[in-house]
Amino acid sequence: MIVVMKVGASPKQVQHVVQLVNEMGLKDHVIQGTERTVVAVIGNDRFKDPSVLESAEGVDKVMPILAPYKMASKEVKKERTVVPLGGTLGGKIGSQKVGVIAGPCSVESKTQLLEIAHAVKESGAVGLRGGAFKPRTNPYSFQGLAEKGLELLALARQETGLAVVTEVMAVEQVALVAKYADVLQVGARNMQNFNLLTAVGEQSKPVLLKRGMSATLEEFLLAAEYIMSRGNSLVMLCERGIRTYEDYVRNTLALAAVPELHRVTHLPVVIDPSQGTGKSYLVDSMCRAAVAAGADGLIIEVHNDPEHAMTDGAQSITPQQFAEMMRAIRRIAQAVDREA
Amino acid sequence: MIVVMKVGASPKQVQHVVQLVNEMGLKDHVIQGTERTVVAVIGNDRFKDPSVLESAEGVDKVMPILAPYKMASKEVKKERTVVPLGGTLGGKIGSQKVGVIAGPCSVESKTQLLEIAHAVKESGAVGLRGGAFKPRTNPYSFQGLAEKGLELLALARQETGLAVVTEVMAVEQVALVAKYADVLQVGARNMQNFNLLTAVGEQSKPVLLKRGMSATLEEFLLAAEYIMSRGNSLVMLCERGIRTYEDYVRNTLALAAVPELHRVTHLPVVIDPSQGTGKSYLVDSMCRAAVAAGADGLIIEVHNDPEHAMTDGAQSITPQQFAEMMRAIRRIAQAVDREA
Amino acid sequence: MIVVMKVGASPKQVQHVVQLVNEMGLKDHVIQGTERTVVAVIGNDRFKDPSVLESAEGVDKVMPILAPYKMASKEVKKERTVVPLGGTLGGKIGSQKVGVIAGPCSVESKTQLLEIAHAVKESGAVGLRGGAFKPRTNPYSFQGLAEKGLELLALARQETGLAVVTEVMAVEQVALVAKYADVLQVGARNMQNFNLLTAVGEQSKPVLLKRGMSATLEEFLLAAEYIMSRGNSLVMLCERGIRTYEDYVRNTLALAAVPELHRVTHLPVVIDPSQGTGKSYLVDSMCRAAVAAGADGLIIEVHNDPEHAMTDGAQSITPQQFAEMMRAIRRIAQAVDREA
Amino acid sequence: MIVVMKVGASPKQVQHVVQLVNEMGLKDHVIQGTERTVVAVIGNDRFKDPSVLESAEGVDKVMPILAPYKMASKEVKKERTVVPLGGTLGGKIGSQKVGVIAGPCSVESKTQLLEIAHAVKESGAVGLRGGAFKPRTNPYSFQGLAEKGLELLALARQETGLAVVTEVMAVEQVALVAKYADVLQVGARNMQNFNLLTAVGEQSKPVLLKRGMSATLEEFLLAAEYIMSRGNSLVMLCERGIRTYEDYVRNTLALAAVPELHRVTHLPVVIDPSQGTGKSYLVDSMCRAAVAAGADGLIIEVHNDPEHAMTDGAQSITPQQFAEMMRAIRRIAQAVDREA
Repeated sequence: MIVVMKVGASPKQVQHVVQLVNEMGLKDHVIQGTERTVVAVIGNDRFKDPSVLESAEGVDKVMPILAPYKMASKEVKKERTVVPLGGTLGGKIGSQKVGVIAGPCSVESKTQLLEIAHAVKESGAVGLRGGAFKPRTNPYSFQGLAEKGLELLALARQETGLAVVTEVMAVEQVALVAKYADVLQVGARNMQNFNLLTAVGEQSKPVLLKRGMSATLEEFLLAAEYIMSRGNSLVMLCERGIRTYEDYVRNTLALAAVPELHRVTHLPVVIDPSQGTGKSYLVDSMCRAAVAAGADGLIIEVHNDPEHAMTDGAQSITPQQFAEMMRAIRRIAQAVDREA
Repeated sequence: MIVVMKVGASPKQVQHVVQLVNEMGLKDHVIQGTERTVVAVIGNDRFKDPSVLESAEGVDKVMPILAPYKMASKEVKKERTVVPLGGTLGGKIGSQKVGVIAGPCSVESKTQLLEIAHAVKESGAVGLRGGAFKPRTNPYSFQGLAEKGLELLALARQETGLAVVTEVMAVEQVALVAKYADVLQVGARNMQNFNLLTAVGEQSKPVLLKRGMSATLEEFLLAAEYIMSRGNSLVMLCERGIRTYEDYVRNTLALAAVPELHRVTHLPVVIDPSQGTGKSYLVDSMCRAAVAAGADGLIIEVHNDPEHAMTDGAQSITPQQFAEMMRAIRRIAQAVDREA
Repeated sequence: MIVVMKVGASPKQVQHVVQLVNEMGLKDHVIQGTERTVVAVIGNDRFKDPSVLESAEGVDKVMPILAPYKMASKEVKKERTVVPLGGTLGGKIGSQKVGVIAGPCSVESKTQLLEIAHAVKESGAVGLRGGAFKPRTNPYSFQGLAEKGLELLALARQETGLAVVTEVMAVEQVALVAKYADVLQVGARNMQNFNLLTAVGEQSKPVLLKRGMSATLEEFLLAAEYIMSRGNSLVMLCERGIRTYEDYVRNTLALAAVPELHRVTHLPVVIDPSQGTGKSYLVDSMCRAAVAAGADGLIIEVHNDPEHAMTDGAQSITPQQFAEMMRAIRRIAQAVDREA
Repeated sequence: MIVVMKVGASPKQVQHVVQLVNEMGLKDHVIQGTERTVVAVIGNDRFKDPSVLESAEGVDKVMPILAPYKMASKEVKKERTVVPLGGTLGGKIGSQKVGVIAGPCSVESKTQLLEIAHAVKESGAVGLRGGAFKPRTNPYSFQGLAEKGLELLALARQETGLAVVTEVMAVEQVALVAKYADVLQVGARNMQNFNLLTAVGEQSKPVLLKRGMSATLEEFLLAAEYIMSRGNSLVMLCERGIRTYEDYVRNTLALAAVPELHRVTHLPVVIDPSQGTGKSYLVDSMCRAAVAAGADGLIIEVHNDPEHAMTDGAQSITPQQFAEMMRAIRRIAQAVDREA
């Protein structure tokens, strides 16, 4: 990191900073500029708290140089990580083929789930999404079918071969969800639920990690690092829109995250245009854009009767719309030398 | 809620919306405007999902009318809730006297904690903050002393009479933390950890609920409603800054939340200017502003040696600065007909 | 609009609102809900100020129903507006072919401009961008070559046939810029410079209107309405990224604006991935995504020597990178049944 | 500035950066870290474009050290600038006494203006605000009385002694507005209208500069620098709320800007709680908070009949509410050793 002293900082203050740096086991390098002095810190300060140096007298600000994550970094592993999804269709995220995960927001009933599962498989999906435990903003809203929902997901896998992707909301649910699911999803609201990150890192099923609604990419990658540092390196990063002042969407889908994440991490990137816009009529365009931008996977809410969906009807597309979208992205994937 | 039809929506589409509304057990009221038709929904639709109506053909948008929370609402209870903090000093949040909670970001050692505790008590604090379980963005950072930290907090209470306020990060920690602490804090990152909200709602110690870093006030109040709906009505709302594009602060402290929350809820409001700015040199001014704006309490990070603090040194003030700040806010409290 | 009364509003307060509505020349329609009364306002209230009703006693909030713009709206004109760019290459924005405008951030010299102009034409651009008047955040930065720059742009058009697109920053520059340029650009910082909007609306050259850095789409369309309401309907809407908390980009490129604008307006949509990311290494992916999302045009910063560019070197791509990008988007355009 | 090389950057790439730095007339200082090399740039690089170095091969990022403004900086002038407002009441902004400017959003009529002017003067205001030229988002809205409005403002000054503060929207209005007004206001939408900034910098009346709705403090100070660099140093900085995702307010009032601006600039700081919240019922609390936070002045919208105000009724308080607010802030000002 670089410690920038205030204009007029005294030699004694600079000396004190040098001493604090040395106390941390790091080397200092003092540079006298024409207006200010800066102290460059030499050594692996990745896990040191820059904040303490900001408290020292005469210090104006501290600027980190090194990225604070390591295992998620491309510096450690150059080639893209490929995550096998499970199920019997051989779906993967991170390979040359864009992997598509689709299904209802919530598992509601056997009929609903199987109808949707068959339809999305038919159109080319390799994974089935569907919430059994639902994080709901409102305590009085439908909270999911819990284990009953997980059983239905397992049944749908048996019938279709689709890999099951479903959310785990709490440490105490991890074992149960891992018993039924192929992929554990950590939702946006739990991206910094560090106990949950640790727990999914200590089991072996792949994890689909959603970006928090106002997380920076650095925080996002540090959340992945939590999981990886406990032994599970099968992490997929899912951009699902960030909170901004925009009001025509539920979230602002930040597609530049795709090339940026590819630049700094080896983990594959999935786009969620359903949460990422909140409007079914914007989903198709954003799926197209995501594939063109280089996304490794898509996760999409599909419902056979959105008007009666128990959750998120407004952002669900129908099986027919899904089929058309798949045809469209297949052509775009080819145009960028991939498949879908 | 109000369902706004698209320009040129057909009578059949309007009729279909009416039918969906009736299916929900609600009454409709169709209004033909000069350009558009709207369907007003009559009845308690507070817990209905407006999203499904957005999926119906011919619908442009759906606008909710009723606030989705109930127990937290001023409509249910007019007078301000007063939360007794515990400890032996009789501190309260929500009364005529502004209650001040102060202490280190993290509990680091017996000497550190006791020295700070005595100092802040001396200056007028009624609660002692200090993290034993620390939510850290980086998996390699100091994660807190855990139960050892809770024991030290209990010791500090014994020596000073200060009420102990400390964070609980996971469902499985609730019983342990509740055994030692007087007030359970739910951190910003866990504001929508619904399992945790439920768990703290099912025990009886007061809860200090921090606003999520990009939560709306409605989401904030729904998080409080989660706790209250499980039986615990002793909830304090803590504004700790929101994430914006601003770069001279760690967070943007949104002080208008104080009068707005007082307008819509009976729950008391606490301001955290340490997290709310991230800069020790801005804390004093923001404490002053918070009290003038009508805050019921303050929670402030104080450290006897910020340069060597294990966490958040840059936003901690010293015991001396704290003492001066207390003198300042005491005068301001009087000027707004309160005490501090 | 819909006026929502507070819980417990008195009949007299409702009556007063009805009277205010009638004073505005509009009809009222009072609806008694189970918990609240709302007053629906019937008639064209598009140009009435909802704010005044919010001041009336007993009113909780006022919700607009009608979009406040008219000429820019798809309700008035269904088919996409096609804007001919000028020059001799027949470039258009809004047609089946995606129109690409490229060139340096600033016009710096004859050699620089001609070299870049020839290169981008060769690769398929139809318009040449280049600033002669530069809006600079810092008063001490290079402010552009002014009329000399305009002359060079005209020369480049003569040599290449490219249409000239350049920014006009002030009312007093409009006539001068219109004399040389084919398209007048209004920059993001001037999106709500209403005098400038009026001035470019009163001349006949097409206008490329950039979205303000934190403008809503409604404000954006109202800015277009300013221009159109003065007689000039040749307006192109340019999304160039919005300001958010994200720090790996200069701006967050909100590509969902493409399908949303196509849904509500007939004006064509241009994407600026250079400003929209601020990083040359993200430009290619975002161009691809923009075309896949349905953008009608692109505007891209290209420099033959970014290391010595006088402005915005970090977001400029080279002529070689531009040529490759054009090949890529041509394939994507075909995959979405367009050309580029 | 500090140029951070990528991991594995070659010596040749480092050498090339050194050469670019030297070409700029600056000195280099290369530091070999354990993981990365950084090049510290020595000398006054305040007006150099860091962006060009970002384009060089092997460069990861460039971090500026020096603030890009100079005349607005506290490094140049330590003591607070005091701006005399004009009029005959001797009002000032920046002195020990908090200066209050109040009046209607728009000048509507002689009766309206004089009634409000007398009332606010009675309660202790020293300046009269009122728009004659109104920047309106909607082209069909009331645009102000123009010169007629300026004449009424001058009349109100004659009758009350209040200094006249009014907005100038365009270069061509500067001379006219300066003829009538005591203080020229530059609105938030024009904060980066550089031609206008230059024009108000070239005349001698004080300028009230509003912060752009998503401007950083650095951009805000650079806008002030534009004015000061043309010879006018009488600039007041006005925080009026920033655009965030919050929806209970029109803007989020960022009061930490008060102590932060006082830390980095000598220019006085004015708070606008009317624009800064958009809700009349939040104005009083925010005025109190602003004074407690150390604001040098307030600018407040007051209307004698908000329900019939031609603009911004919802955020205007009545003369009675203003009188009460003045009594409240007078007590708070004393509590922070100031007057109001």
